[in-house]
Order: sequence, then C-alpha cells, then structure tokens
Amino acid sequence: MPTQVQSYAAYAADTPLSHYRFERRDLRADDVAIDILYCGVCHTDLHFARDDWGMTSFPIVPGHEIVGRVTGVGSEVTGYQVGELVGVGCMVDSCRQCSACSDGLEQYCENGFTMTYGSVDPHDGTMTQGGYSDAIVVSERFVVRMPEGIDLPSAAPIMCAGITTYSPLKHYGVKPGHKVGVIGMGGLGHMGVKLAKALGAEVTIFTRSESKVAEAKRQGADHVVISSDESQMAEVAETFDFMLDTVPVQHDLNPYLNVLRYDGTHILVGLLEPIDPAVNGGSLIFKRRVLAGSLIGGMPETQEVLDFCAENGITCDVEMINIDQINEAFERMQKGDVKYRFVIDMASLKTQSAA
Amino acid sequence: MPTQVQSYAAYAADTPLSHYRFERRDLRADDVAIDILYCGVCHTDLHFARDDWGMTSFPIVPGHEIVGRVTGVGSEVTGYQVGELVGVGCMVDSCRQCSACSDGLEQYCENGFTMTYGSVDPHDGTMTQGGYSDAIVVSERFVVRMPEGIDLPSAAPIMCAGITTYSPLKHYGVKPGHKVGVIGMGGLGHMGVKLAKALGAEVTIFTRSESKVAEAKRQGADHVVISSDESQMAEVAETFDFMLDTVPVQHDLNPYLNVLRYDGTHILVGLLEPIDPAVNGGSLIFKRRVLAGSLIGGMPETQEVLDFCAENGITCDVEMINIDQINEAFERMQKGDVKYRFVIDMASLKTQSAA
Repeated sequence: MPTQVQSYAAYAADTPLSHYRFERRDLRADDVAIDILYCGVCHTDLHFARDDWGMTSFPIVPGHEIVGRVTGVGSEVTGYQVGELVGVGCMVDSCRQCSACSDGLEQYCENGFTMTYGSVDPHDGTMTQGGYSDAIVVSERFVVRMPEGIDLPSAAPIMCAGITTYSPLKHYGVKPGHKVGVIGMGGLGHMGVKLAKALGAEVTIFTRSESKVAEAKRQGADHVVISSDESQMAEVAETFDFMLDTVPVQHDLNPYLNVLRYDGTHILVGLLEPIDPAVNGGSLIFKRRVLAGSLIGGMPETQEVLDFCAENGITCDVEMINIDQINEAFERMQKGDVKYRFVIDMASLKTQSAA
Repeated sequence: MPTQVQSYAAYAADTPLSHYRFERRDLRADDVAIDILYCGVCHTDLHFARDDWGMTSFPIVPGHEIVGRVTGVGSEVTGYQVGELVGVGCMVDSCRQCSACSDGLEQYCENGFTMTYGSVDPHDGTMTQGGYSDAIVVSERFVVRMPEGIDLPSAAPIMCAGITTYSPLKHYGVKPGHKVGVIGMGGLGHMGVKLAKALGAEVTIFTRSESKVAEAKRQGADHVVISSDESQMAEVAETFDFMLDTVPVQHDLNPYLNVLRYDGTHILVGLLEPIDPAVNGGSLIFKRRVLAGSLIGGMPETQEVLDFCAENGITCDVEMINIDQINEAFERMQKGDVKYRFVIDMASLKTQSAA
C-alpha cells in the first residue's frame, strides 16, 4: 500500500508553501524507503515553486538535498539496509542504458534523467515530489551512503551544491599547483572554495565588492581579487588554470576569460541563459581557452564527494530552519541573506503535523 | 650585408598590391636564409592588406604559407643545410622562455609571438615582412622541413590552413570511432575534412546550401547535413563528438552545440569577434559541452602535420597563380571563388623583376 506522507508544497506560483499530504509509492524491487531527517534549500527550489521556468506542475514539493535513514528496502536491493543513513540528490531515475548512464554520468542521460521533484516518473506517470517531506522512495541506484562521522545537516547541501562544484573540479583534474578562481560567494561558491582547496589548488575568490573581502578570506580563499577593479584584474591577467563560475545571473565573462592562462578553462555551473554580453571568440582562440558547462554530478561521484568531504572535514556552512520558516527562508535566499545554505530540520514537520 | 629582395606589398589599405623592394637582414647566428618557391594566399593576408583590423603598418608584404629552399645558415644553425626544402608559417619568433614556448606552443607565447608579417621584430625593431617575396630570413626554430616526396605547392597552405585544423584535432584526441562535424567549406574546412578522415574519424560536412552537397562529398565527407534544414539538424542532435568550426564570420553556434553529444566539443578556429547571437549557457551546462578556441599550432606540431600529410597523401587543393594575379586573387577569395587555396608561384616574381 502507498504510504501517506506530510510535506510542504507550493500550490501555485504566487502563494506561500504550505502543508500538503500525498502518497509515496509502494516499494518497487529496487527501491529504498527513506525517512527524511534534513533537506537543504536550493535556489532551484524557489525557481520551481514560483514557476520561473514555466515548467512547474502544481502542487510541487521541492527539495533535492536530502539526508535520511532507510526504513525499508525492495526485494532486489543489495546496497542498503534498514537503519542506514543515506542521501538523495537532484536525480531519482534515468534510462540506465545509454552511454552516459553506463559511464555513471546519469545527469547527462541521453533519454533525460528524472528530477527528484517536478518530473514525470517514467514507470507510473506520477509527478515526482521532493524532500520537503517526511519520507521518500527512491531506486537504490540514486541513493548514496552517508560516510561514517559526517555531520548530517551540513552534508545535505553536498547532494547538490557540493557535487555541482566537485564534479567539474574532478573532471578537469584540478590538483596541487593549479590556480583556481571562484566567482560567486553563495552556496555553490563557498563549497567550490573548500573543495578546490582540499584538492590542493591555490584558490582565489573574485568578488565585485571590497566589503566582501573579509568574508572571502574567512571562506578559506588564499587570495581575493576585486573584479570591478581593472588594475587588480590586469595584475592577474593570464594566470589562472580554472575559473569556477557559480553565478546564476547574467555577467560579463570576458574579463574572467582574460585572467585564464593559455589552455585555461572557464567552467559555468549556474548561468543557463544565452550569455550576455557576448563571449569574445578571439579570447578563446588566441589562448586556446575553453568555456565549459557542468551539471551536478553522476551517482558514483556523488558518493565520492561525500566520502571526500568526510575525509577532509569539509562541511557546508548551514543555517538550520524549521519547515514553517521556509517561506521566510525563500525570501531571504532571494536577497542573498544566507551563509550559505538553509537546511530544514524535518523533525519540525513531524512536530507540526502532530500539532 | 642585408640582402635586397623583390616583393609585392600593399602600400595602403585601398590600393592594389604592387612591386616593393626592401632588405632582408643579415643572418643572425640561428637564422636560416630561404629562397621562396611558393606562397599560399590566406584570408588573413587580405585583412592585413586592407587594414581590416586597424593594426597594419604600410607598406606590408603579406604571406605566411611559405615553401622554399635554404640558401644560407647562421653560424649556430644545427638543423638545416643549404639546399634543403623548408617551410615557414605564421610565426617567425617568440620569447622562447615562457611555459607555452617550453611546451612547443609558441603560438600561445605569454609574451606574444612575432608574426611572419606585420610584427615588430623584437631584436632590431624592424617590421617583419612575409612571403610574397623572393626570399626570407627566419630563426631555425620557426622553420620546418618539407618531408620527402611532398608536393611543394600544395604543401604551402599546410603551414596555416593545415596546422590550424590539425592542431585542435590532435589536441582533443580525435581518433577512430569519433564523429566529427566540419562547418565551413573553405581553405580551412576542406583541410579539416581530410585531416579528420586521416585520423580515422567519421566526418560530416555541415553546409547551409543543398547546392554544395556534391562538392562536400567530393571533399571526402562521409555525410553531409544541410544546417538550414531543421529536420536534418534534429536527426543528428546529440550525436557528434567534435565540431570543427572554420567559419570566420558571425553565425549562430547554438544549433551546432545541439548536435554535440554530452562531453562534445565545439572548436572555433575562425570567429574572432564577440559571438552573436549569444551562446546558450544551458546548452553547455546540461550536456557538459565545451566551447573551445584554437590558434594555428606550435612548431613541433607544424612539423608533425607536414609529416602526417606526406605519410597520408594529404594535399591542399590549390589553384596556382603568378604574383601579378594577386589582386584578382584577393577579389575572388573575398567572393569565395577559390577551391580552396591560391598559391603563388614565386618564380613569377623573379620573371617579373627581370622584365
């Protein structure tokens, strides 16, 4: 029998999130049932709740930075047992057969992956619903194990903000001796700094404002460059191996391309729109520079980043909230007023529901 | 004593090229003196002659696809002897000390390479002058050897059109099993097709016009896609590993990005301007695609491409002209009326001068 769960959902683009009761499916043979303990709050949650991308089917339960405990497993599950601590990120399914899936890069599934919320489940046609709920049912392929000793609330955002920055750093082979610049000091940016540092790189935060220098240093950057200061930008021209660009809104890439040395790579993880102002073709050609994109990460590397964070003592800076603070959290997040990720303590949903 | 040479030069942006007599320097210790036999005509020659980029110092002798015979060597030259057949391409010097130069990637010299024409020689402050002349003097580092048996006139364009397309194909590891698309059917494009084929790739030419299909097949492409036909483009969506984009004028990259599979790479070798229309960031992010630039090639790989062409019987399709046809050739080139490279028989300059 399907299980009734409590959640917070958006019922429409212009109304606050509120209580929503719905059913999680019965366990399929490869499914894991998870009691959700914590769920991070990603900017994408807000975009879906407000239907910013015109693709939301309401009601929608956001949340794709999920940490929880296994409460049941399907008949063919081999990797997980009841009682284990696990995570679920941005994906809950994919075709599992294409070359991307075979490579463990389910996020690039040639038939399209199934998002944790807001996708049509390819097996039963229902809409997937996310982690602002007290339980979830997910195929074990899309479940990862929480490593021993990791701090659970601050591990939640690793499932999205962490893997999104770790995946390109690993893919492009960032290592000691490399100079990495990080653009954007938000949830993704601050994880990018920690991860690039742990991979051995010399890390510089680029910020437009002098007022953010202290905070950039606190994040662990070796250097800070004020990107609005042309002389500072000229000083570092042609010196960086990688620029990790976490900014999700329009910005001029050309000044950043110029700080890359020849063969340097500018990695976009946030900017989904047509790039305005235009990228200068000559800037790529004359120095064999690369403009690349990267999307979250595959399941094997999601496990890898969790293990890497546990080994290196890397945590996401979080601010814990109760579920009834989610609308306020959305508003603060939109203003950039969070250092650096809200995480919902899902026990607060159970308390609320009981009340 | 400096040597007097004959040449054809542009004296101003709006006048035809005509006779020009100037001096080539005495041999420095590492210099090779070369009698020029053939010189290819590159679109860049036209841009410099007409001062399209606002950086031309007149008079200017264009030409950077040079094949000739060694007539003298400096006291410290070890690699070349009088009588040998050699080539000179787009560069005649660089700092030789930076990491790019150390990597044999002189074209990305961190202190700027010296162009074969139109650059200030870093040693004596004179302007460099190119291959539309009967002789040239070049440091041996920037000279390559003509392999045994190569057809000399059709080898000339390998020094620019050939290396410009070979370098990125090699850098990105194009090999059997890869699907490579080539955009642009000019001097660079037709070399790109031959080189990608010889590297073992399955090659598709993208052309806007049905009328060019037969010629595309003649160039050796395995397939032809009409890029203006949306249904043909949809059929090949997400199937290419590499797109080699030789088009030097504005064009929409987004339809081409969409034919790249995940991890696919779009390589710009011609488009130097701000890219208009804008590149879609999401197209890069959602499939981890790469937009890359590439500039000519380093000296070691310039030797390599010549050897590769000789081994594989690859030649550039050329139309031979005499030097007094250069102005007409420029006009025809501008209209795209050349298959695929004009090459000047420099014997015609000697005849003219004698006349």
